[in-house]
Amino acid sequence: MSDPTTTEDSVGLVETKNVAINLPPEGLVLENGESLPELQVVYESYGKLAPAGDNVIYICHALTGDAHVAGYYSSQDKKSGWWDAMVGPGKGIDTNRFHVICANILGGCMGTTGPSALNPRTGCPYGSSFPAITTGDMVHVQYLLLQHLGIKRLAAVIGGSFGGMQVLEWIRRYPLVVDKGVCIASAMSLSAQALAFDIVGRNAIQADSAWAGGNYYGKAQTPVLGLAQARMIGHITYLSSENMKRKFGREKKAIHEPLPRFATPFQVESYLDYQGSKFVDRFDANSYLHITEAMDIFDLAENCADPAEAFRSVDPRTHVLVVALSSDWLFPPEQSLAVARALVRAGKHVSYCLLPSPYGHDAFLVEVEHLTDVLRTFLESVSASCPAPPERSRLGVALRRSLVAEASADTRVSNRPSTPPPPRRLVHKRVHGELEREDYIRIVEQIIPGARVLDLGCGDGELLCELMARKTITGLGMDIDLEHVISVLHKGLDVFQCDLDAGLNVIPDRSYDYAVLSQTLQVVRKPRLVLNEMLRVAREGIVSFPNFGNWRHRLRLGLKGRMPVSGTLPFEWYDTPNIHLSTLEDFHSLCRMDHIRIVDTVCIPRGWGDAALLRLGLRNLGSDRVLIRIARE
Amino acid sequence: MSDPTTTEDSVGLVETKNVAINLPPEGLVLENGESLPELQVVYESYGKLAPAGDNVIYICHALTGDAHVAGYYSSQDKKSGWWDAMVGPGKGIDTNRFHVICANILGGCMGTTGPSALNPRTGCPYGSSFPAITTGDMVHVQYLLLQHLGIKRLAAVIGGSFGGMQVLEWIRRYPLVVDKGVCIASAMSLSAQALAFDIVGRNAIQADSAWAGGNYYGKAQTPVLGLAQARMIGHITYLSSENMKRKFGREKKAIHEPLPRFATPFQVESYLDYQGSKFVDRFDANSYLHITEAMDIFDLAENCADPAEAFRSVDPRTHVLVVALSSDWLFPPEQSLAVARALVRAGKHVSYCLLPSPYGHDAFLVEVEHLTDVLRTFLESVSASCPAPPERSRLGVALRRSLVAEASADTRVSNRPSTPPPPRRLVHKRVHGELEREDYIRIVEQIIPGARVLDLGCGDGELLCELMARKTITGLGMDIDLEHVISVLHKGLDVFQCDLDAGLNVIPDRSYDYAVLSQTLQVVRKPRLVLNEMLRVAREGIVSFPNFGNWRHRLRLGLKGRMPVSGTLPFEWYDTPNIHLSTLEDFHSLCRMDHIRIVDTVCIPRGWGDAALLRLGLRNLGSDRVLIRIARE
Repeated sequence: MSDPTTTEDSVGLVETKNVAINLPPEGLVLENGESLPELQVVYESYGKLAPAGDNVIYICHALTGDAHVAGYYSSQDKKSGWWDAMVGPGKGIDTNRFHVICANILGGCMGTTGPSALNPRTGCPYGSSFPAITTGDMVHVQYLLLQHLGIKRLAAVIGGSFGGMQVLEWIRRYPLVVDKGVCIASAMSLSAQALAFDIVGRNAIQADSAWAGGNYYGKAQTPVLGLAQARMIGHITYLSSENMKRKFGREKKAIHEPLPRFATPFQVESYLDYQGSKFVDRFDANSYLHITEAMDIFDLAENCADPAEAFRSVDPRTHVLVVALSSDWLFPPEQSLAVARALVRAGKHVSYCLLPSPYGHDAFLVEVEHLTDVLRTFLESVSASCPAPPERSRLGVALRRSLVAEASADTRVSNRPSTPPPPRRLVHKRVHGELEREDYIRIVEQIIPGARVLDLGCGDGELLCELMARKTITGLGMDIDLEHVISVLHKGLDVFQCDLDAGLNVIPDRSYDYAVLSQTLQVVRKPRLVLNEMLRVAREGIVSFPNFGNWRHRLRLGLKGRMPVSGTLPFEWYDTPNIHLSTLEDFHSLCRMDHIRIVDTVCIPRGWGDAALLRLGLRNLGSDRVLIRIARE
Repeated sequence: MSDPTTTEDSVGLVETKNVAINLPPEGLVLENGESLPELQVVYESYGKLAPAGDNVIYICHALTGDAHVAGYYSSQDKKSGWWDAMVGPGKGIDTNRFHVICANILGGCMGTTGPSALNPRTGCPYGSSFPAITTGDMVHVQYLLLQHLGIKRLAAVIGGSFGGMQVLEWIRRYPLVVDKGVCIASAMSLSAQALAFDIVGRNAIQADSAWAGGNYYGKAQTPVLGLAQARMIGHITYLSSENMKRKFGREKKAIHEPLPRFATPFQVESYLDYQGSKFVDRFDANSYLHITEAMDIFDLAENCADPAEAFRSVDPRTHVLVVALSSDWLFPPEQSLAVARALVRAGKHVSYCLLPSPYGHDAFLVEVEHLTDVLRTFLESVSASCPAPPERSRLGVALRRSLVAEASADTRVSNRPSTPPPPRRLVHKRVHGELEREDYIRIVEQIIPGARVLDLGCGDGELLCELMARKTITGLGMDIDLEHVISVLHKGLDVFQCDLDAGLNVIPDRSYDYAVLSQTLQVVRKPRLVLNEMLRVAREGIVSFPNFGNWRHRLRLGLKGRMPVSGTLPFEWYDTPNIHLSTLEDFHSLCRMDHIRIVDTVCIPRGWGDAALLRLGLRNLGSDRVLIRIARE
């Protein structure tokens, strides 16, 4: 096997650096008022610092992590750093581009000052005299390290799990230092269930008589049983049930000698035993107690009437990405969504995505494929810019077309495609290509410059991008599809991955000028809910949809007795995502019933037949699609 | 407050009975070959034993339960038995009707022989010498108790959690004794995750030095810290995260004196402490070890190529009800479904339902409303009988009608209802009333006597019931709606609560003669999948659906430009559950593509217009609904 330290995508050999931070005479004053006389910080760094100092990424590690994020300590070292899959040349956090720093947290046991460190006041380890610390104290120490290193700005601060909590503390506490924040599989505070597991874990350590109130350093007995017990509990919570099933199921190991009484031969027991015993070799029980305590009391929204208040101090130019993992039950997706929601409500730049994974909370460490795409895209995007100048974009060209020119395309697109699209899952899918762009032209025309626009079912973000270029809007996209979300992130725009049928409860009332629903009304399960939600969150709604009342559909059903299939409605009845079709008349009727005012109706024809019918005033017959601006009555 | 022991729906004052079971000279031989010289069993019973002895229900308790299911020990007793909400006069398990028995399990610590009992061979408590026991041993002891009491048959055996595992063992081991089995929130074996929690719990007890290898009886120190720790872990798994959030969230208790170091003020910590300390007062650590071990090694499918083999011995006349709880993550619904699936594959009578609850695994103890309905219905139903003789049923009357007579109903039902039905969630919903029954008539006509019939979207089971009465079929219903499932259970039929869009993977290939899909094709999300699944599990499919090619729909869309709303399609476009509409022609076309043979097409007209068109051979125009028999080519 080749030396892993020399492979192309590894940061290679790394070393841990230890610095003593210069403190004022009162020492490091903690949030609880106590102080530490000395502060050692252990950190690692990878990648070159740019001369402008604008390429620094700080990584916040989780509960039992450390500064050793990537690479190897020697060519014999078999184990790389804990996030080697993500950090390295060409990886998700690309060390060819970024200078990456991570330090062991305050209270830890890997070199940064913690309960096992020598207290200079006594010459003995702190033990039970180590003060209670907070997540804020930890982030403060990280800030002091960066000052010490002469680093003034962070291109990004990134962390998962408890590291994500530190990221949230960073953007609140040092708003002007951070350009981008990435909070992965985390929360504004632990859930009651997660608290409960931590409580039981601490209980196990304290129930171990060898813990001795925390003063066990240098003694023959240390609380290894209790610490192993806490680790085992933790490990169960880091994996999904599905992952445990795949990894172990009810497999048994071969038994060569009788097991101790009540030990089972199940592989999962061997795994837990191994995780417990491996952990006590590298971790300190008092650090476990202190860090879990800091995590448990972390609660950004504790004294806030609205969780958004927690993020008031965040710089409006900082872009935050919140990432949830689908099978994470320790920090479930709802908690990540709550973080993103609070940031939206606070009026900050935030994007949210939900990565599919069967691996549970650990997925951000072990299954990095999707996360790599998302992180790379977010880190390398230039915020809120448009990739092509409007004059050269495809939409720009399309805008110069006339209706007559479009008509020539009719024969081509109105024929049923010879190879119908394959069946696909129900996504907020738009009709692609020409039709989509035609639709965008009409929407761009409707929107006043400088408006705030919410694009529901935003696809790859092309419409938002055009609106930013042509109308200098500010906007947020929403889409159910992860690939679309990544495309939108790539354009430097804010985007939420969500299901419109679940409602728009992340969006405060009247926070947008326009909510756009382009060719998406017919694919949602609850069109009426979505329409009413649009008019809750925005002053006006702009809805476009295929008009089932068009003469072509009527003819196909009326004369051929078949469900209409066309360029506008390209699917067969059995695999169509278009599950709530309506006519222009139907839509107007629903609006009357729901007290929705029609501000404007734009009839979009396709072909000379449509155009002729529209000239005769036959809108329902002549509209291939319609675009309707609506408002609350 | 009134005396709870005298309220109408309480079993009132109860007493625990203790019997010594007569054993052969070799004692009670256990599954592992060891034996116990003596066997004491502690039990309680409520309700009168019927003279015929045919009203006995045996309840199997869970891990830490006991024989005290219901009632009070004295009028001062504040705490009733553990399932008092379910067992009593007029309750779900009605003691006016049934004679209910429950015994403390073998290995327990509430009076039945267990590790804390005196070993007559030594005169000391068994302690570490108590042999390893299995779930089979426990059920064997329950059987011996019933023999001792002269009880030969069980109207039902019922249990939740580990009690459900005992129920499965009962129906396998003593098939001719049990009429009905109810397995609630249980599994054929624990998941890897549940195993892991048990392993950590046992580890905590054994790590407690006071456990002393199990020989702590009579000593000053007993393993209370370890046992409390195990209980705390267990308690977290019994509640859903949502329930913990509702119960405690991050609420803190008022602090009057300084907390011990690393204790938090969170209510959830007080709760866990309380549960732990309360538990050690009533439970024995060795019993906890033995019973969890028996539960962990319980694995019905361990040596089976197909889990169905585990149930080969079950009496084909025994009816089993498997109940899952939606938010249970310790025994998740998939595991209950796997039990039901194995029983179906073994060709046994089984029904399955999924009760909605936010309370997690504990829901069967604390939220008994739905469970009461389901249990009462199942226990009181007369298996596989039809409530009304066919001559008097509504369908019987309907069968005598002619098409001409039906035509007279046309004006009434083809008008749009003046009060349209309210928006409703997507259920496998049928058009109600006359149309439904008309449909059934045609289906009954198609089915040969004695056939096996699977009714997909079976509604209240009326069709199955008629088929049983008229064609003596055997059948299984499937429906997504709990109310429907209860209606079907009420009729004594087997029914599965499931979503057809998830596929029919509970049903083996070619296990039915007919799969019926009456007025349900258009409401499923994946009609093509469902059709192909029907022809996997059955020799023929019978599909009926509203024909969108009918002239009325064509006229409404063609001339009025509105989405059709009629008696057959009574919903508006925005709230319709009918999301995949098709015409007769469309359906035939899909069949050709998927190599499905059309065995027969029955065109169902409504009104003279339809009838006239059909006489002209215009099937697509003249069919209001169609009924098509299909088979694999």
